[in-house]
Amino acid sequence: MSRIAYVNGRYQPHRAAAVHIEDRGYQFADGVYEVVPVQRGKLIDEDLHLDRLEFSLGELEIAAPMERRALKLVLREVLRRNGIDRGILYMQVTRGVAPRDHKFPVMARPALVITAKRLKPVPAKYLEEGVGVITLPDLRWKRCDIKTIALLPNVLGKQRAAEEGAYEAWQVDPDGNVTEGTSTNAWIVTKDRKIVTRPLGHEILPGVTRRALLELLQATDFTLEERSFTLDEALAAAEAFLTSSSVYLLPITRIDGRKVGNGKPGEFSKRLRQLYLDHAERQATAA
Amino acid sequence: MSRIAYVNGRYQPHRAAAVHIEDRGYQFADGVYEVVPVQRGKLIDEDLHLDRLEFSLGELEIAAPMERRALKLVLREVLRRNGIDRGILYMQVTRGVAPRDHKFPVMARPALVITAKRLKPVPAKYLEEGVGVITLPDLRWKRCDIKTIALLPNVLGKQRAAEEGAYEAWQVDPDGNVTEGTSTNAWIVTKDRKIVTRPLGHEILPGVTRRALLELLQATDFTLEERSFTLDEALAAAEAFLTSSSVYLLPITRIDGRKVGNGKPGEFSKRLRQLYLDHAERQATAA
Repeated sequence: MSRIAYVNGRYQPHRAAAVHIEDRGYQFADGVYEVVPVQRGKLIDEDLHLDRLEFSLGELEIAAPMERRALKLVLREVLRRNGIDRGILYMQVTRGVAPRDHKFPVMARPALVITAKRLKPVPAKYLEEGVGVITLPDLRWKRCDIKTIALLPNVLGKQRAAEEGAYEAWQVDPDGNVTEGTSTNAWIVTKDRKIVTRPLGHEILPGVTRRALLELLQATDFTLEERSFTLDEALAAAEAFLTSSSVYLLPITRIDGRKVGNGKPGEFSKRLRQLYLDHAERQATAA
Repeated sequence: MSRIAYVNGRYQPHRAAAVHIEDRGYQFADGVYEVVPVQRGKLIDEDLHLDRLEFSLGELEIAAPMERRALKLVLREVLRRNGIDRGILYMQVTRGVAPRDHKFPVMARPALVITAKRLKPVPAKYLEEGVGVITLPDLRWKRCDIKTIALLPNVLGKQRAAEEGAYEAWQVDPDGNVTEGTSTNAWIVTKDRKIVTRPLGHEILPGVTRRALLELLQATDFTLEERSFTLDEALAAAEAFLTSSSVYLLPITRIDGRKVGNGKPGEFSKRLRQLYLDHAERQATAA
């Protein structure tokens, strides 16, 4: 089954799917995106992703390319045509095609691109041994709460992590607090068993997996603190982990090459991962 | 004469010129660009632009799509095919097409897009009355010295300026100093006749017109100070102006709706604009 992409109203073979060179996404990074997990062919936390898409579009004053109901039908058609069972659906909305000029064009219509792909299962090694992160100064702009395609600093951070043999780079603000990873939210578990993650603000992306996990935690007796934490606190923590839509939750066992806790995935990380997996599986098997 | 764009080795009708949806420029803003002025069919300050392009590519570890000598031939061919006498040449280099993954792809080849277009002369009104700027907090990332296509904050600033009836938005850093406009460098002339512009650093783009003008000033008896200046200092200045590759130099006569100096384009702005015009004309008429 060859891949099919949706591009501005047409289903096209993925390898031939193209946009105009003056699409503002290409010349200005003037657009936003979402990555939605797919499990048993079902979109997980779909409405949370579409809520965030609408928020991002609203902040940039880009019109929605279509009504949510219609968009949901298109998303399902992309999944169907690609025969995705477990994977991710990617959608990108830009301000559209217009002669190059920084200010918003009067006539352009938003452009919509949707792709889907299978994902291999998370490598067992990541779960058994945990992953490593490095830390870097946070170079990004001051509106990281908008999920824009202006991802260049994230690209540079992720590349640096890969070069240093790490899975992710945690970005650190000028006050020494961890903001988030380049494509993941950051969490620690303190030695006195508190789960800590940075509160929402302009400095981090409002992660959907983060949000879903926080909601799931409400029904448990875990203790949660939404507050900033420093790199030193992370290094002294019992556990650390990351969340994202494509890997859900991964334990972090090394920060800048130093062990977190005993250097093995902790109990909280495992239990919270399972909590999210159960949540996703409930959605995947619902009618 | 219909417009022709160069896209990865092919000359195509502009309206049909396209790039793949997984070009990293489209999904990650993982690319850089240059805008080169064209006068009498000649590229102005071409080598300064190509120097900066190489700097930008180097900082992002993107390979040059071709040798400078070959690139120069392609630039000339794009100009010729589009019959451009006075206008701009736009070139964009991205890290190329690869399956979406933040870190640098192993196999991708850099993508190169080049377009050219005619420019109307700068409206006489801009020169006779000057233009207005508004001021905004600088939201951009911490490497504004790299000329990347991650221009979303610039887009938002320019749009805000347009909505408020201004030509440009000056961005102001947390210390209250003006960094630069969204697509122009910022200058003032103090009451004691000193020309002031912010020194190079990670906070501003090393503008080619800025650089050429600074070099031209060496041969004059104008007094120059490369240093930061605050918004208050700009409001108290005798003159203010902006420089860019497409408009060269425009006098600024209003900042946030308040008059600069006597509210009319000043003597320095006029003389410095002429200094640059003469420089460009010398290049345009050289063999």
